Amino acid sequence: MTYTYEFPRPALTVDCVVFGLDEDDLLKIMLIQRKVPPFEGQWALPGGFVRIEENLEAAARRELREETGIKNVFLEQLYTYGDVNRDPRDRVVTVAYFALINLSEHPIDAATDATDAAWFPATKKPPLPFDHEQILATALARLKGKVRYEPIGFELLPKKFTLTQLQKVYETILEQKLDKRNFRKKILKMELLVALDETEIGVAHRAARLYKFDERKYHKLKQKGFNFEL
Amino acid sequence: MTYTYEFPRPALTVDCVVFGLDEDDLLKIMLIQRKVPPFEGQWALPGGFVRIEENLEAAARRELREETGIKNVFLEQLYTYGDVNRDPRDRVVTVAYFALINLSEHPIDAATDATDAAWFPATKKPPLPFDHEQILATALARLKGKVRYEPIGFELLPKKFTLTQLQKVYETILEQKLDKRNFRKKILKMELLVALDETEIGVAHRAARLYKFDERKYHKLKQKGFNFEL
Repeated sequence: MTYTYEFPRPALTVDCVVFGLDEDDLLKIMLIQRKVPPFEGQWALPGGFVRIEENLEAAARRELREETGIKNVFLEQLYTYGDVNRDPRDRVVTVAYFALINLSEHPIDAATDATDAAWFPATKKPPLPFDHEQILATALARLKGKVRYEPIGFELLPKKFTLTQLQKVYETILEQKLDKRNFRKKILKMELLVALDETEIGVAHRAARLYKFDERKYHKLKQKGFNFEL
Repeated sequence: MTYTYEFPRPALTVDCVVFGLDEDDLLKIMLIQRKVPPFEGQWALPGGFVRIEENLEAAARRELREETGIKNVFLEQLYTYGDVNRDPRDRVVTVAYFALINLSEHPIDAATDATDAAWFPATKKPPLPFDHEQILATALARLKGKVRYEPIGFELLPKKFTLTQLQKVYETILEQKLDKRNFRKKILKMELLVALDETEIGVAHRAARLYKFDERKYHKLKQKGFNFEL
C-alpha cells in the first residue's frame, strides 16, 4: 500500500511582504518586476515556488535573497492564500510572509539578480497582480495590530535612535499623529528603552538624546504582549 | 510555453482544531480516530487533502463535516505547517484552521461517518501524531491572545447566558481565576451585553439574570479590537 496522495496537487509558492522605513520615515515596500508571464513586466511581491525538500520559511528566505539580495531578516508567517482562481496559470496556493527591515542596513544588493527589485512608498506603488493587493492589505493590517499589542521598531530603526524617530515609526504605521508628551510618557513607562549618553550628530536643530532598545525586555514583552493605548 | 510548475509538488492538506465548552465549562477539543496508516487507530485532528478545485476553507469545512458531522461553524485560519519531515508518508503541507463552538448546539452527528469522532478535555487527551501537538499549542495560544484583544464567547456560549458563565469562559481559556466584581465591572463597561428580563431556569441556587450579546457591538469590537486588562 502506498501512502502518497495520488490526485492532482496544487503548486505551492511563498510570497514576501517586506516593509522598510527610509530616512524620512516613509513606509516603503519591496517589489520586484516580473520577468516571466503571467503579468510579465509588472511589479509584484517577491516570491516563488517551494522546493520539494525545502521548509516554507527557508523558501521565503531563498526567494528574498535571490530576487532582492535581502538576507538575515526577521520573517513572520502572515496568511495562506489558496483561492482556486488566484493564479491564471494553474492552481497555486501561496504562503505569505512578512518582514520589517531598516532600509539603511539592507541596501538592495546589485551583485544578485535583484536588478529588478525596488522600494516603493506603501501609499504610492503600482497596482499589483494576482491577489497581491489583498496580501499587502493583510500585512498592513497585521502591522497596525502589532503596534498596539507588542513592541515594534526594533527591526525598522537604526540601533540608536531618538524618541522622535520612534514616534514617527508609530505614526507612520498607524497613519495618525500622536501627542508627543503622551507618547513619551507611555513609551518610557514600559522600561523598554535605554537612554544613551549620546546625542544625534549632524542635525540643524538641537541634537536630541539617543536611545536603544533593552533587547531582553523587548523580546520578553514581544512574547507576553501589552496594551499600548493610543 | 506552459506556465505550469513542472517539478514535484508537496501534497496539501487542511487540519482543524475545534474547541468547545461543555456544560461544566470544561474546554474540549474534537479528535478523530485515524482509520488508515500512518498512525492508524490513533486520535488526531480532523482534516484531509485539499481537492484541486476546492478553496482552502471549503476543504476544512468539508473534512469537518465528513469526519465529525460539524457544520456551520466560524472557522479562522491559524497557521500553515510545512516542515519537510512532518509527515512520514510524503512531503505534506497543512493549512490549520480553528473553530469555536457551543457543544450543546453541535452534537456529534451519528448519521455521518463520524463514529470515530469524540470530544476530549483539552488537558486530558491522548498524545497526537504528526505535528498535531504543536498545532494544538498554537491554537491554544491564539485563543488566549484573542481573549485580551477582542470579544469572545459568542461562539462558545448558548444564546442566553449568565455573567458567571461568561466569566467561566474567560477563566477556562486563560487558565486562571478572575475576580468576580472586577470582571463584571469591566465587561459591563464595554456595553457588549444586553440584560434580559429573564433568569436561569432549573437551578438550585438563586436564579441569576440572563444576558445576550449585542451582536452589532460584538462584531464591531471584533473588527476594532480592544484592551481587556485582566
